[in-house]
Amino acid sequence: MTLLVVGSIALDSVSTPFGDRADILGGAASYFSVGASLFTKVRLAGVIGEDFPDEHLELFRSRNIDLQGLRKIEGGKTFRWSGKYVDRMDVAETLDTQLNVLGECKPELPDAFRDSEFVLLANDHPANQLSVTEQLNKPKFIMMDTMNLWIDNFRDDVLRVLKAVDALVCNDEEARALGENANLIAAMKNISAMGPKTVLIKKGEHGAIVLHHEKFFALPAFPLEEVKDPTGAGDTFASGVMGFLAREGNTNFATIKKAMSYGTVVASFNVEDFGLDRLRTLTRDDIDSRHAIYSNFLDVNA
Amino acid sequence: MTLLVVGSIALDSVSTPFGDRADILGGAASYFSVGASLFTKVRLAGVIGEDFPDEHLELFRSRNIDLQGLRKIEGGKTFRWSGKYVDRMDVAETLDTQLNVLGECKPELPDAFRDSEFVLLANDHPANQLSVTEQLNKPKFIMMDTMNLWIDNFRDDVLRVLKAVDALVCNDEEARALGENANLIAAMKNISAMGPKTVLIKKGEHGAIVLHHEKFFALPAFPLEEVKDPTGAGDTFASGVMGFLAREGNTNFATIKKAMSYGTVVASFNVEDFGLDRLRTLTRDDIDSRHAIYSNFLDVNA
Repeated sequence: MTLLVVGSIALDSVSTPFGDRADILGGAASYFSVGASLFTKVRLAGVIGEDFPDEHLELFRSRNIDLQGLRKIEGGKTFRWSGKYVDRMDVAETLDTQLNVLGECKPELPDAFRDSEFVLLANDHPANQLSVTEQLNKPKFIMMDTMNLWIDNFRDDVLRVLKAVDALVCNDEEARALGENANLIAAMKNISAMGPKTVLIKKGEHGAIVLHHEKFFALPAFPLEEVKDPTGAGDTFASGVMGFLAREGNTNFATIKKAMSYGTVVASFNVEDFGLDRLRTLTRDDIDSRHAIYSNFLDVNA
Repeated sequence: MTLLVVGSIALDSVSTPFGDRADILGGAASYFSVGASLFTKVRLAGVIGEDFPDEHLELFRSRNIDLQGLRKIEGGKTFRWSGKYVDRMDVAETLDTQLNVLGECKPELPDAFRDSEFVLLANDHPANQLSVTEQLNKPKFIMMDTMNLWIDNFRDDVLRVLKAVDALVCNDEEARALGENANLIAAMKNISAMGPKTVLIKKGEHGAIVLHHEKFFALPAFPLEEVKDPTGAGDTFASGVMGFLAREGNTNFATIKKAMSYGTVVASFNVEDFGLDRLRTLTRDDIDSRHAIYSNFLDVNA
């Protein structure tokens, strides 16, 4: 089924213990669309500036991503983020953020995207996310991401979006803040009571846990000896989850569990190199091979 | 097969968001022996002072724990620990430690314990742990615990014990320090190269991961909405692991995986109440019932 992502496209500058990269392709919607394109046909909605390099558009096109929702703003500059990871690399220290066109433009879906069935609302101001839900015509499954900035300062708006979506994906700190409980399990139950019947928590090296219609399921991360750049780990995890769900065309618990295992595998590839460098060359065969190893790693009876 | 634990027996004073308890039974060997007694016959070696309440000895006896290795030091005072947990309760803040008899006595095994086949060396000075390994007669499987205090200040001694044991159990921060790598997977490989072919890492609410002869396996924690007191979670996890291994009488990978799932279940009960209050009434049926729920929770194909 059709899969739409609405979110940021960025030029990132990243520093990790393994090196530095300047002005590389980044942004949640970039990571998500390239990751999900390995599962299904993806529609991308977002804004870029005049400075956005053609080579990045070529990457999207090479993955058959539908760019009808990509707006290039004349005279505008692309959103830029600069961050640093140290030691355990579990938290990004943001060095600089320049919203640029992202701060100036509200998300607008082209008519051709309004019938999208699976939708990922990447992290954005909740008012923008709500506006997208109103532009959709009978979506089947909407998942939203969010962050502490919105939870802390625009809680009512976040709650409004929560009522309009089927699923939330966020990290564990965000879930504790949104669910107002230091216990993650209790926080997830509180969030589900606010609307979404699927609450999916990303825990980085500790894996992921979901609450789906009152049932829990958790997965450990794929064990990696070397993580070069964690940027986009959460977005590529979501890309594998939503890509698999859209391909299967259903969202029952069994499919969500399997989707999470694919999301884990895509994210594990993504962090092996800077930015989108690993996903650039990643194939379905790569994913299937590692998924077989991962399934064996998970099996308590193997 | 026979299972021996050598370690601390304490009187704890604990404060958590759910209340306070003073002078309750604690210490790694107490948690471990009571937990493991639900799987197999346990031998306990440790020291207590004259102030140690008889009711705690009664608990040990009621679980058929062999107390021949328990030494009461005349005129001595029992080891005391006082700690506090706040917010997420993932880290204990130590308020006070009084070593008392623990600082005065080296561990001594009675002759009747020297033929123990499965052995847990609870957290202690590595010189004491090494001494115990030398008192054993052809043990089958020795697991050691340790902590940052010893890793940071007595590294060479810790390395000596690592060469004399089959398995290490510790938390992820300790593993990163001992394995000298911020990446847990890389740190575990480094530790295994130091000796133990089984490296078992406790991650609290994030579950556990093991490296066993170059193969990894991980489990998420049992999802709990309320954790009243995390004290002893790691020791009761180890008790389920070692209790199950000793009962099965083997240590192959398949048995270790299953043992970890039982360890997770025992620990999940333990943290539901203060100190050993939950384990005091816990039965094999309770464990089996929750293990069935946990197995279903883990099953990606369920």
